[in-house]
Amino acid sequence: MTPHDTALLLDRVRQHRPRVHCLMNSVVQKFVADGLAALHARPSMTASPEEIADFATGADALLVNLGTLDTQRRAVIATAVGVMRQRARPWLLDPVHCDASPTRRAFAQDLLAQAPAVLRGNGGEVATLTPPAGVVRVTSGAVDLVACGARQLRVANGHPWMAQVTGTGCLSGAVIAAFLTVEPDALRAASAAMLVLGVAAELAGEQARGPGTFEPAFLDALAGLGAADLLNRGRIT
Amino acid sequence: MTPHDTALLLDRVRQHRPRVHCLMNSVVQKFVADGLAALHARPSMTASPEEIADFATGADALLVNLGTLDTQRRAVIATAVGVMRQRARPWLLDPVHCDASPTRRAFAQDLLAQAPAVLRGNGGEVATLTPPAGVVRVTSGAVDLVACGARQLRVANGHPWMAQVTGTGCLSGAVIAAFLTVEPDALRAASAAMLVLGVAAELAGEQARGPGTFEPAFLDALAGLGAADLLNRGRIT
Amino acid sequence: MTPHDTALLLDRVRQHRPRVHCLMNSVVQKFVADGLAALHARPSMTASPEEIADFATGADALLVNLGTLDTQRRAVIATAVGVMRQRARPWLLDPVHCDASPTRRAFAQDLLAQAPAVLRGNGGEVATLTPPAGVVRVTSGAVDLVACGARQLRVANGHPWMAQVTGTGCLSGAVIAAFLTVEPDALRAASAAMLVLGVAAELAGEQARGPGTFEPAFLDALAGLGAADLLNRGRIT
Repeated sequence: MTPHDTALLLDRVRQHRPRVHCLMNSVVQKFVADGLAALHARPSMTASPEEIADFATGADALLVNLGTLDTQRRAVIATAVGVMRQRARPWLLDPVHCDASPTRRAFAQDLLAQAPAVLRGNGGEVATLTPPAGVVRVTSGAVDLVACGARQLRVANGHPWMAQVTGTGCLSGAVIAAFLTVEPDALRAASAAMLVLGVAAELAGEQARGPGTFEPAFLDALAGLGAADLLNRGRIT
Repeated sequence: MTPHDTALLLDRVRQHRPRVHCLMNSVVQKFVADGLAALHARPSMTASPEEIADFATGADALLVNLGTLDTQRRAVIATAVGVMRQRARPWLLDPVHCDASPTRRAFAQDLLAQAPAVLRGNGGEVATLTPPAGVVRVTSGAVDLVACGARQLRVANGHPWMAQVTGTGCLSGAVIAAFLTVEPDALRAASAAMLVLGVAAELAGEQARGPGTFEPAFLDALAGLGAADLLNRGRIT
Repeated sequence: MTPHDTALLLDRVRQHRPRVHCLMNSVVQKFVADGLAALHARPSMTASPEEIADFATGADALLVNLGTLDTQRRAVIATAVGVMRQRARPWLLDPVHCDASPTRRAFAQDLLAQAPAVLRGNGGEVATLTPPAGVVRVTSGAVDLVACGARQLRVANGHPWMAQVTGTGCLSGAVIAAFLTVEPDALRAASAAMLVLGVAAELAGEQARGPGTFEPAFLDALAGLGAADLLNRGRIT
């Protein structure tokens, strides 16, 4: 996986315009939707029992994010995951804060049996779970780790202000989901997505004056990111 | 309807400071609230069954937005619409994504029988519904169409980055609702609102570097918009 | 209470990195989370009955915000407040819009019997409630008033654009909660928090072109605020 491969996949996302259905925490819905839209992907976020099957049926990928998990979202996740599996479309699990609640950890562990393409979280979250073989693990940090069995990639791009913008981790789950629609190898898709986000963050850091102005600059950078940016700055090994 | 008429109505909104109650999708609540506040309108967004009647009773207009429709919002819409009709106050229907779910489409079609002043959506959404006579249809696009029976207006202002900022359509529903409180002719109110938004978007496009910085610039432009901007740039026919 | 005292408390918040659990309206969750993160505090916002006890048990302070109050949040507030009281940790009540709904006003008045450290609101909200002795009242306005019995402080910093950014009041509740974790005297904690926010707003006003660009500039200013800013600009009496 190289910056050049990443640039090709980014072009495919922009051409294909995948619809990514996000069963998403209530805090960062707009930021995640705007991040997908910056890549010309199309977000949808409905979580109602009456409509989830219709929306999942029209989606190219599914993101299941467990932040601010509530009773309604808990109930519809099974339906949405079932639709994606039946349609052989990819889904990703982001078990936000599962290390803060035994109930949520157990719910996340059960979901892993439903074969997500990717499990994404920070170090504390990923460490509390035991994914079955075949699930790609993305552990975000100063250096992002993308791993599946013996295969392993590291993405060393990013910016410290990402940690002060709520939802950058959640957005990475959505962007990985978008890349899964154009690259069947989940390890390659996930590392490409993390490289795109990391390089965009570096560009944004040069435009911003703090974490507040970093956020719009980050969306600008995602929208404007070119192959040259990836080739000049991408650090993936 | 002219840019000059629009400038007069914009002044009236700023003077009158209407309270617009928004039964709103969960994704773009803050953006819509900030857009209303930029015009000195006052947003409220409660959707609880215990409180909806109190909030609707104090509102000057009601926006019913069907994005991320959930069971609770579905239940309180009837109450809120009933209060507005009894008080002879205007309401607007924005049937977000009704073309993606037959359940939602049917719900939207039923609501149209409750006489909204305006039905607002994109081309796909509006095309799936059959509004009764007297409902003004606002179809947003590169050129916005505002129509009621034989009367028809076109607003040709706007900016491509609007499509990459989640919620610009939803905000237009809220701004039309605000204009309905100062202009009883819904066709005039709706086209004035669309012109204000379109001209503000053009001004914002000149300040921004991408869709991320476009959003705060758009709110700045709404807050600072003057009669001269409307007269110099407004394209309404 | 002086600007110098405030600078010391701000340093303590940044060092201590308190986790503030926010039972929060749905409109401004991300803005409040970003505002806490700008001060290196750590937000959490879950409101599910299955998980609230776990999250409250790990929190250093609790914010109860009644905006867009729904049935689920209504139910979990008692649990969360009970956990904080048992653990002798501070909590704050922000009775948003309680002056617009008798039901919400009664709910807020009942909560005041559970001994919040601080009641925060605008003039209209605070005036409709009768807090018991010992509860610090923070009334925001052009000049913020922080009062408890005969003790009273005034903070005269701020910027008019705060009123056009939805959630600046809600954020002040969260920031006061963060300061309560490093200063047991709630009057001192609350006035320090209000001074930090007011001075940051003044700095932001000098960077922004309107209420839209004011918001990211305000987060930048919170993140970058130094002792010199507080000493040069702080107006607290």
